Amino acid sequence: MSDIKKPYSQLTPAELKAEKEAVEKIYQEYKSMGLKLDMSRGKPSTQQLDMVSDILTALTRSELCYDGDIDARNYGQLSGVPSAKRFFAELLGCRMEQCFVGGNSSLTLMYDTIAKAYTHGLLHSERPWCKEEKLKFLCPVPGYDRHFAITQSFGFEMINIEMTENGPDMDAVEEAVKDPAVKGIWCVPKYSNPDGVTYSLETILRMANLKPAAPDFTIMWDNAYCVHEFDGDYVPFPDILSLCKAAGRGDMVFEFASTSKITFPGTGISVFACSEDNMKYMLKLIGIQTISYDKTNQLRHVRYLRDKEHTIALMKKHAEIMKPKFDAVHEALEREIAPLGIAEWKHPKGGYFISLDTADGLAKRTWELCKEAGVVLTNAGATFPYGKDPRDRNIRIAPSYPSIKELKKALDVFCVALRLAALEQLTK
Amino acid sequence: MSDIKKPYSQLTPAELKAEKEAVEKIYQEYKSMGLKLDMSRGKPSTQQLDMVSDILTALTRSELCYDGDIDARNYGQLSGVPSAKRFFAELLGCRMEQCFVGGNSSLTLMYDTIAKAYTHGLLHSERPWCKEEKLKFLCPVPGYDRHFAITQSFGFEMINIEMTENGPDMDAVEEAVKDPAVKGIWCVPKYSNPDGVTYSLETILRMANLKPAAPDFTIMWDNAYCVHEFDGDYVPFPDILSLCKAAGRGDMVFEFASTSKITFPGTGISVFACSEDNMKYMLKLIGIQTISYDKTNQLRHVRYLRDKEHTIALMKKHAEIMKPKFDAVHEALEREIAPLGIAEWKHPKGGYFISLDTADGLAKRTWELCKEAGVVLTNAGATFPYGKDPRDRNIRIAPSYPSIKELKKALDVFCVALRLAALEQLTK
Repeated sequence: MSDIKKPYSQLTPAELKAEKEAVEKIYQEYKSMGLKLDMSRGKPSTQQLDMVSDILTALTRSELCYDGDIDARNYGQLSGVPSAKRFFAELLGCRMEQCFVGGNSSLTLMYDTIAKAYTHGLLHSERPWCKEEKLKFLCPVPGYDRHFAITQSFGFEMINIEMTENGPDMDAVEEAVKDPAVKGIWCVPKYSNPDGVTYSLETILRMANLKPAAPDFTIMWDNAYCVHEFDGDYVPFPDILSLCKAAGRGDMVFEFASTSKITFPGTGISVFACSEDNMKYMLKLIGIQTISYDKTNQLRHVRYLRDKEHTIALMKKHAEIMKPKFDAVHEALEREIAPLGIAEWKHPKGGYFISLDTADGLAKRTWELCKEAGVVLTNAGATFPYGKDPRDRNIRIAPSYPSIKELKKALDVFCVALRLAALEQLTK
Repeated sequence: MSDIKKPYSQLTPAELKAEKEAVEKIYQEYKSMGLKLDMSRGKPSTQQLDMVSDILTALTRSELCYDGDIDARNYGQLSGVPSAKRFFAELLGCRMEQCFVGGNSSLTLMYDTIAKAYTHGLLHSERPWCKEEKLKFLCPVPGYDRHFAITQSFGFEMINIEMTENGPDMDAVEEAVKDPAVKGIWCVPKYSNPDGVTYSLETILRMANLKPAAPDFTIMWDNAYCVHEFDGDYVPFPDILSLCKAAGRGDMVFEFASTSKITFPGTGISVFACSEDNMKYMLKLIGIQTISYDKTNQLRHVRYLRDKEHTIALMKKHAEIMKPKFDAVHEALEREIAPLGIAEWKHPKGGYFISLDTADGLAKRTWELCKEAGVVLTNAGATFPYGKDPRDRNIRIAPSYPSIKELKKALDVFCVALRLAALEQLTK
């Protein structure tokens, strides 16, 4: 590595040129190694999956397949087995009657909620959304690419809302919802993807107290990381359903969660929680689509995870694997990037990502350089609607999947790529 | 029981009156017993579920969760693990590249196919179906209520097509598809629900050779009972995908199947099979909705069911439990109903139902009388679109779930209810 440890902005042209040559040389060395490293998706590591694989033996005999009188193996019980509803209700701080337990993907539950709004309308819709002239959706940025992909797929105009350290810019949200074409907002309220921001109580209260023009405006409250602290103890979090109800608009929110990063990503169980009136309405629609989701797997999860306390204890074990990886990212960035003044990044205590903002205009080039050297990052721009980062600066680092050794190597490449991108820009 | 064993139509008014009084008396005796018996849904019995519960231990350790290099526990592999695709391809006689393996419900895959046609259009659609002025769908009757519920939910006008002993009336189908508003047809080609009819080769070939006016006309080929013989050996069945392709319209069909009645109804795996071009198109849309279905359960099923031969051997064991139940229905009907000339019924060799046609105008009343005496049947009319049986005569008997003893009791009640309904009509 070059040993320059001061902001690039303070270097003379000659120093920049020398630094660029030096960094370029290191980059070429990495490139010649034929690396194949992946920091692109928030995937638990194999070590984490092995740690929880006892769940595979949590339900091994016929007699264990009953939840009270209900045979989980057979048809029926559209909204899930009671014990799974009870489990999620405790996790989220709502009531079990408000919980619909789904299959292995909360993303599917979110997609299906939007899809049903589109095809049939929601409880307070004046018409199915496909019959509206214009559809808009609020997208806090940077945010989760798969959320944005859903609303893009259904033809929404997506409106960027800036994230602050307390959550979405609520002034902007309150202003935007005056437009009746604005049908909802995507939220990851705890350890937001990718910033790792937990919404402040004030933000949450302002969200619950929104008075949108659209009668069917819906807060898509994706509580994906509700018990996913990797640094420090579990942080309690308010129940958005009761807050919306207290504010007089209890049907305005659908909350989502899953066990994808508690047990297995591909084989977990999911939930949506909503008001009883919404539930009644949705059950009628979902009852056409399925007879129920996989109740045996619901029961398997309840037997294995037991309750909130036991789940939080398990999350501590995940944290033991996760935290050193996040530490490794911070160490590398502190050492290699911090002195140069070419990027800033967040220090989350939960979730799966580190969100890094480069100086404007460096994200895409950094991604390209990484890719050419065999290090896969989430696409630059992916954290914005339409994949368009207006300042081309946000990079989502997902350190969970690689081993520490692979991760350190990937970070070496990343830091050199970022430096090279900055130097290319500064010497243009 | 009354001992009249000749057609009611040959009785004198006085004989009818006496018979009615006698049957009424027996009916009241049953009613007073407070029975609670269910012949309403095609649910496997607990005995069948216990028989296959070894599947719960088919995947108990981390090392077993790999399909080749693929860790089924983690994210990825949208269309399913290769071994599950291979399994279904062998079962259906198509190629594994044509298979998308889903979750526990083929109904969901069917709903989602129609939903995506509605929101986004299919491969050859000129526009999403929600943008069409008028939507029509062909519904062979009697048919499966959950199929009809899907097209009803999306606002299709449903057109009844009479079932013959060889499948849907193809003259009527060929005529109907000249209307470009007709977007598809529901088919259960083997052991149709509820008639238990297996489409003849001629019917299948005419179906594959349809030249519908709508470019995106779709055959919804629900092969729900593809290996579900309960009487006699497995009956081979042609691959509809290659027949459609040979006829020059390979993208016209989506085939569906599941293990719901092979392993567990609530916890099985499902598949849709279609042309490679359709698959490419659908994967783009489904990739927005999920990262994949539950691949661990896919692998669990492959480990347990192994291949087609082993699956067919397992179906023989299901048959040993199922056949005596179907026999019990036939025995009761032959003994109590056949001589009276008030109903006819089918004698299927596979599937889950016996379809019975009463004399016109008796189905609803028979259903009511059964219900009042504690015997639940599928709603009269349910086997027709909008729940409207034009001749009020079809009753779907589902004998699989009750024990033989319960079933015999339920049939006693059913036969008396049917006789009473007929006598009420004849003495009006």
